Amino acid sequence: MAPSVIARPFRYDDFTHIKVDFLTDDPRIAVLTLNRPEKLNAWTDVNGMSQSIVRAFNQFDKDDTVKVIVVTGAGRAFCAGADLSAGGATFGDANATENPGSARNIRNARDGGGQAALAISRCRKVVIGAINGPAVGIGITFTLPMDFRIAYKGAKIGFVFVRRGIVPEATSTYHLPRLIGHSRTLSLMLTGEVFPASHPLLSLLFYQLTDTPEACVAAALDLARNLAKKNSTVSMALAKHLVWKGTATPEEQHLLDSKAMYTTGNSVDSAEGVQSFLEKREVNFKGGVVKDIDNNPVYSGWYPWWGRVSTEGVPNLTEPLHKL
Amino acid sequence: MAPSVIARPFRYDDFTHIKVDFLTDDPRIAVLTLNRPEKLNAWTDVNGMSQSIVRAFNQFDKDDTVKVIVVTGAGRAFCAGADLSAGGATFGDANATENPGSARNIRNARDGGGQAALAISRCRKVVIGAINGPAVGIGITFTLPMDFRIAYKGAKIGFVFVRRGIVPEATSTYHLPRLIGHSRTLSLMLTGEVFPASHPLLSLLFYQLTDTPEACVAAALDLARNLAKKNSTVSMALAKHLVWKGTATPEEQHLLDSKAMYTTGNSVDSAEGVQSFLEKREVNFKGGVVKDIDNNPVYSGWYPWWGRVSTEGVPNLTEPLHKL
Amino acid sequence: MAPSVIARPFRYDDFTHIKVDFLTDDPRIAVLTLNRPEKLNAWTDVNGMSQSIVRAFNQFDKDDTVKVIVVTGAGRAFCAGADLSAGGATFGDANATENPGSARNIRNARDGGGQAALAISRCRKVVIGAINGPAVGIGITFTLPMDFRIAYKGAKIGFVFVRRGIVPEATSTYHLPRLIGHSRTLSLMLTGEVFPASHPLLSLLFYQLTDTPEACVAAALDLARNLAKKNSTVSMALAKHLVWKGTATPEEQHLLDSKAMYTTGNSVDSAEGVQSFLEKREVNFKGGVVKDIDNNPVYSGWYPWWGRVSTEGVPNLTEPLHKL
Repeated sequence: MAPSVIARPFRYDDFTHIKVDFLTDDPRIAVLTLNRPEKLNAWTDVNGMSQSIVRAFNQFDKDDTVKVIVVTGAGRAFCAGADLSAGGATFGDANATENPGSARNIRNARDGGGQAALAISRCRKVVIGAINGPAVGIGITFTLPMDFRIAYKGAKIGFVFVRRGIVPEATSTYHLPRLIGHSRTLSLMLTGEVFPASHPLLSLLFYQLTDTPEACVAAALDLARNLAKKNSTVSMALAKHLVWKGTATPEEQHLLDSKAMYTTGNSVDSAEGVQSFLEKREVNFKGGVVKDIDNNPVYSGWYPWWGRVSTEGVPNLTEPLHKL
Repeated sequence: MAPSVIARPFRYDDFTHIKVDFLTDDPRIAVLTLNRPEKLNAWTDVNGMSQSIVRAFNQFDKDDTVKVIVVTGAGRAFCAGADLSAGGATFGDANATENPGSARNIRNARDGGGQAALAISRCRKVVIGAINGPAVGIGITFTLPMDFRIAYKGAKIGFVFVRRGIVPEATSTYHLPRLIGHSRTLSLMLTGEVFPASHPLLSLLFYQLTDTPEACVAAALDLARNLAKKNSTVSMALAKHLVWKGTATPEEQHLLDSKAMYTTGNSVDSAEGVQSFLEKREVNFKGGVVKDIDNNPVYSGWYPWWGRVSTEGVPNLTEPLHKL
Repeated sequence: MAPSVIARPFRYDDFTHIKVDFLTDDPRIAVLTLNRPEKLNAWTDVNGMSQSIVRAFNQFDKDDTVKVIVVTGAGRAFCAGADLSAGGATFGDANATENPGSARNIRNARDGGGQAALAISRCRKVVIGAINGPAVGIGITFTLPMDFRIAYKGAKIGFVFVRRGIVPEATSTYHLPRLIGHSRTLSLMLTGEVFPASHPLLSLLFYQLTDTPEACVAAALDLARNLAKKNSTVSMALAKHLVWKGTATPEEQHLLDSKAMYTTGNSVDSAEGVQSFLEKREVNFKGGVVKDIDNNPVYSGWYPWWGRVSTEGVPNLTEPLHKL
């Protein structure tokens, strides 16, 4: 039987340096592939991977036909890091060479890897990184806002920034300490060394290690299928942001999770979740973030509870610099 | 010799679905038992466990006859999770069915498990969870504000919320990332899977694993006796809240711990702590949180240093929703 | 060939209870030794270790001839903890005995270990603790703001404060939960027990364990040489503070790391870092924090991005107590 064709609200066939496919056996699962295999999927920024990844994840977030996203690399690498073909000028700002260090330029500075990381961080669908090969520099930092990372045990992982004279970017200094603690974060970031994924310093970072690169992608797809089949889309969306974008005290978190329990507890998905469990049958969740959160008045006034700092477009240059 | 009878300032014999006992060999140690063994200690909310646990921990906090609390479950389970006897309506708000999604109802929403978790979080005595059997849903989340968790290695542990169409509650999205890091927290909360306590994903959560359920309770009591015998009540009270309710910068934390060092450093307990150590004899701490903190003027003006958001009673409905 | 003599902008030969040496094979590496071997390097406060450590790290921070600092102990101990020769009065404030508990005294209270910890926390050079023997009380807490800790596997480590009737100090309740998580922090701090460095509860704290005390110092020096040789001084300075003094949201962190990427990406060190990598040759970084950050206008207006609470000198006594 041929899989039914899904009508999607967005195009997914017009990206640069990445491609997006959907599983035929479960079309709620998207696979985003970094797609410059001849360059070990080296990262490209303007008009390249950053921009494509931002748009893809903005679409996934608002698309009720998508439930879980797997991110992997074409060929033998996951992502070898920034494309260094510009040599010593790679990380410089072309405009800045005319007037190096001017406040005008630093005000406009927006790290491209960070734009991609933020789009992943904001996306309400579960994201699984399938790190099938080397992941170095931006190749590992942009995976940190993902919900799961599965790696081939021999994949080379490197937070190499201090060895290139730059800094860990893409919000990695926010995410990595929270993921694995400050102690191991400093060990990885201040040595700048490259380690195999199986190294003890990395052990908390990965949900699973596999013996081969191929098994890594297979394991990620199995996890994706399992999550898509058994878990509520709305529950996963709220849970991941309660964890990442929570409050500073247990009391405030209680006020917040009480509201999330109220909205989900009164939902059709909650009734189905409990009844299927009591009846020992497979669950059939139907909720979606657009139809059951964005278009549901019970979420207005408190959701989203986190503020969003403007990071896109041209900043207001009359603001003090530290606010930009 | 019969144990001396301790005069307690509160009643501990009138709870619902829980019971509280004190050790005869050390009556400073309370044992709180979830007590619905025929229902695997399934959690009951209004007029049940939530309310009883809130009152018990409020009393422990203000009772200088209590030094350490052990929490365990009667029978073969620790706590199987929410009582699901209401079926699909379990997590719904009965009032909400008349007017689902009204702002009136969400304003009043206060998660019962969270009320219990907050009472444990606020309690200044050391709390040890003895997880003798299955701990699922609220059965594991309400243990997260405890100071130690000792588990039978085969106990089933599950953050199953996304499989029931609800969200991780009881301030668990605040506590779990801090306890074990965001990486493992997301693995546990977004899969919703049930794991044995010995699973590597849970390794940071437990102070100790035991080979049998009985050994779990025995180990918790041994730890309780050791803490009660060797450690200062006031020191433990301050230490646990310096860790959980600290400030956002090392500079501010320095201002805070300087005050705590000043008050404790000038106390009778500190002199006894140092002298007993130098004399290589057993220590005899006599301090208590009511008499040496609450009734001690040197603590006024800075203790407690953390704000308390109102989470009890009827909220002020004229406030904006995100503040309630 | 005799090592060239380095002109230093500060004196390093006039400290009390510590000494500072520089490696002859790499004079950018300072070795700070706690130097009371006959007292197991027991900590002295006013006119002793605290004050000397504060000055040494303030100097290291502002001295472009220093790149990496190793901290170790003379003789068989690292640091046995506070000098207890004053007996039961050790942690008391001498002024306070006249008027115990007066607000005047608590307002002035500034924990000496915390002053040292803050100086280390503020220092922009990489700091490696070589814990060659027992590290107890302040002996372990003052190492927590360091970037790496390497320990002899048999070194006794103890957060013993609750057994002496005082509290964990020196900003340890800030640093330890972030380094290794709240779960293990509470296990260590609330038991107050002494463990060998190889104990599982401590596993996340150390970058490396060694079989002998001598190997511990050798490993720390090797790491120091490696960092000094391969990594950018400016990159390490920014990276460690992006990790420790970051913002509360990924969006704000993106605005911050975008600026750090802009400044470093346009630097000579970044060009050298990329070119040396492409040419597969040794790197030769020349940047320094004074000449390339403090004296560089592109850093003004946003660096340092973190506020500094006044913790030195005499506080303003008209402020409310909780602000002092």
